[in-house]
Amino acid sequence: MRMYDLIRKKKDGAALSREEIDWMIQGYTRGEIPDYQMSAMAMAICFRGMDERETGDLTLSMRDSGDTVDLSGIKGIKVDKHSTGGVGDKTSIALLPLVSSLGLKIAKMSGRGLGHTGGTIDKLESIPGFTTSLEMDRFVKQVDEIGIALMGQTAELAPADKKLYALRDVTGTVDQMSLIASSIMSKKLAAGADAIVLDVKSGSGAFMQDPKDAKALAEAMVRIGKHAGKKTRALITNMDQPLGNAVGNAIEVREAIETLKGKGPADFTELVLELGSRMLILGGLAEETAEARERLQKAIDDGSALEQLKRFVKAQGGDVSCVEDESLLKLADQTMELAAPCDGYVERIECAEVGMSSLLLGGGRETKTDVIDPSVGILLHKKVGDAVKKGESMATLYVSDRTKGEAALKRLGAAYHVGGEAAVAQSIILDEVI
Amino acid sequence: MRMYDLIRKKKDGAALSREEIDWMIQGYTRGEIPDYQMSAMAMAICFRGMDERETGDLTLSMRDSGDTVDLSGIKGIKVDKHSTGGVGDKTSIALLPLVSSLGLKIAKMSGRGLGHTGGTIDKLESIPGFTTSLEMDRFVKQVDEIGIALMGQTAELAPADKKLYALRDVTGTVDQMSLIASSIMSKKLAAGADAIVLDVKSGSGAFMQDPKDAKALAEAMVRIGKHAGKKTRALITNMDQPLGNAVGNAIEVREAIETLKGKGPADFTELVLELGSRMLILGGLAEETAEARERLQKAIDDGSALEQLKRFVKAQGGDVSCVEDESLLKLADQTMELAAPCDGYVERIECAEVGMSSLLLGGGRETKTDVIDPSVGILLHKKVGDAVKKGESMATLYVSDRTKGEAALKRLGAAYHVGGEAAVAQSIILDEVI
Repeated sequence: MRMYDLIRKKKDGAALSREEIDWMIQGYTRGEIPDYQMSAMAMAICFRGMDERETGDLTLSMRDSGDTVDLSGIKGIKVDKHSTGGVGDKTSIALLPLVSSLGLKIAKMSGRGLGHTGGTIDKLESIPGFTTSLEMDRFVKQVDEIGIALMGQTAELAPADKKLYALRDVTGTVDQMSLIASSIMSKKLAAGADAIVLDVKSGSGAFMQDPKDAKALAEAMVRIGKHAGKKTRALITNMDQPLGNAVGNAIEVREAIETLKGKGPADFTELVLELGSRMLILGGLAEETAEARERLQKAIDDGSALEQLKRFVKAQGGDVSCVEDESLLKLADQTMELAAPCDGYVERIECAEVGMSSLLLGGGRETKTDVIDPSVGILLHKKVGDAVKKGESMATLYVSDRTKGEAALKRLGAAYHVGGEAAVAQSIILDEVI
Repeated sequence: MRMYDLIRKKKDGAALSREEIDWMIQGYTRGEIPDYQMSAMAMAICFRGMDERETGDLTLSMRDSGDTVDLSGIKGIKVDKHSTGGVGDKTSIALLPLVSSLGLKIAKMSGRGLGHTGGTIDKLESIPGFTTSLEMDRFVKQVDEIGIALMGQTAELAPADKKLYALRDVTGTVDQMSLIASSIMSKKLAAGADAIVLDVKSGSGAFMQDPKDAKALAEAMVRIGKHAGKKTRALITNMDQPLGNAVGNAIEVREAIETLKGKGPADFTELVLELGSRMLILGGLAEETAEARERLQKAIDDGSALEQLKRFVKAQGGDVSCVEDESLLKLADQTMELAAPCDGYVERIECAEVGMSSLLLGGGRETKTDVIDPSVGILLHKKVGDAVKKGESMATLYVSDRTKGEAALKRLGAAYHVGGEAAVAQSIILDEVI
């Protein structure tokens, strides 16, 4: 086989065979196929696309390019959950202890944040002592013993994806549906779960700003999951404004804990219950959504979800007292308020800009080597559709550095659009792909 | 400027500005833009194309990426000629002395052959002593003194094209009209002539097999020439069977000499007169074709064209006695005959296959480092439309190595299609672009 011939084939609009895709991906991972041929291929794929079978095969080939996690020793159906990323997305921190308190086995690989979206690991590390640097043995053992564990993704998982993504990132070939879907799913499949629930974000704070694109991505990923023999479902959820009220790190963990205490924001609680019900169904612990939601609500009401979060935090070295009293999670001393510019309604919030405002405070990463300040963040008091009075605080910023605070406040102010229209916020769940 | 942004721009279908193209080409030549970004760009260009202005700007930018030849010291209009390459194409060897005998100044950069097409330099080197390794000073001086000089193309001419072509060659991005046209024209423009006559080959032995593609390439190149302020014309000429009767090296030089003695094959003589008339017109030595052809025919008839060839060969160190008596150009001792398989007519000759047959004999190069045997070659006795009798020789092969000869004979036999239809051969001139 010659890479030249495969490039020509794709350029001419033909589908690559399973063998061809495998040869290409394994050869590229080993450095036998040069970047300049792979980037030409990626560009040809941007124009010609990949069909369902090709996309599935590409995913399996990238999955098989490195280590895969073996969870077969753990009893029960292991269900994984993945979010395409958004602003204020602390879902895993509340959701995973909740569903594992009902018996679902959770072995979660997670990532760090970059740009306007935060990462679950960064957020959890704002709990003193909490570590995600687990050895694989301990990770599997912990899932077996307490039902839940979370670790940072290792480089050995789907290295082809890592290498190809880095190339796509500098050659203008990121925004192709099959390449996006296979990139996400190759890592998910390598992580070894039996079933996968996907949370595909849509809106101004999401990678997919257009709901049609979000739906298409959800469909592509669900098809890949099935191609790989895994039960897979996706919810398309609203990221046109931040999820919940908290944006940052410690401040988001606080909100996740409050949610497991039954005091969470309505939109975030709803998302947790909806995703959780799909996880229970795929895990064989419920037949249908209403029943599943009832069980989840009960686990919140009777405190068993919170107990499971404590077990989880303790097992990973974190300070459990912070779960008992979330106000122990330290926020920055100084605060600044975003005052409403006039009487009216919040018509729109540019969601990615809220994430950028948090990043400016020091709560996110512009480049991979930036260090995060877990104590800074934003608490939104007003969201889309809320009435505001001139001068009233629409959001509080927790600030470590006054200069950064002023830049962040300015950016947040520009993100809020206040006017005379009493806009109705979209529901948090937009669509579902089964 | 960032290459990433330029890739995105082209991928989205927009035109790159003159400044963007310049920045990209000069950066790529200096190694500041990596191959993997350039190949993604080339693939995006394959799908999105380049408009007339972009194609012109790309050409000028590649022209300016290295040295350009300064012919301004030579009096008169310098007219260059370029062929896109074919089988049996010894045109320059007859044409250039012919037009320079009438006063046109010829400063020709030429190339070597690769694959099924031969190169003018390889052919001329079958004249004992002939060299094309001239210093630039001597080259210019020779044009000034005797009106004609020919040298091998130096690496310093349009290095961007050299580098980009090598990349396109391994990334499946060769067959894009703007890229092909700018590649050819950047070298032509760097070579410094005032006017250019293009011979765009079309048919089974040409790079452009489809006449529509050949026409489009001719149009693109003529537009580029005008964009660069050079008078440019193109003939689209037939390469559906070999040009003339001789295919090889020494054997083709023999045919070129015979043609200047008025004894050349009809199709080849016609091509020389037609191209020559365009060169005279662009050079301001004739008003229209009929007048120009008359002057060219006279220069053949009165021997002045042959005298000019002798001057040319002598100036470049070649043995002039071979021009006086072309049979002194050594052909291989052994011959093999291709016998007609049945009574009938030559319906079709797969032209590239004739070139491959000559290559198998040792008369061409499969890779750049192969050494050519100038004495081998093929003399076609029958061409398309000719009647043949079973067993009659359709072609003679001049062979140095019997094993190679048998392989070549087999390949040549498969290239000839003899049947009951008295096909009419196409005329040598198919179309013209002014």
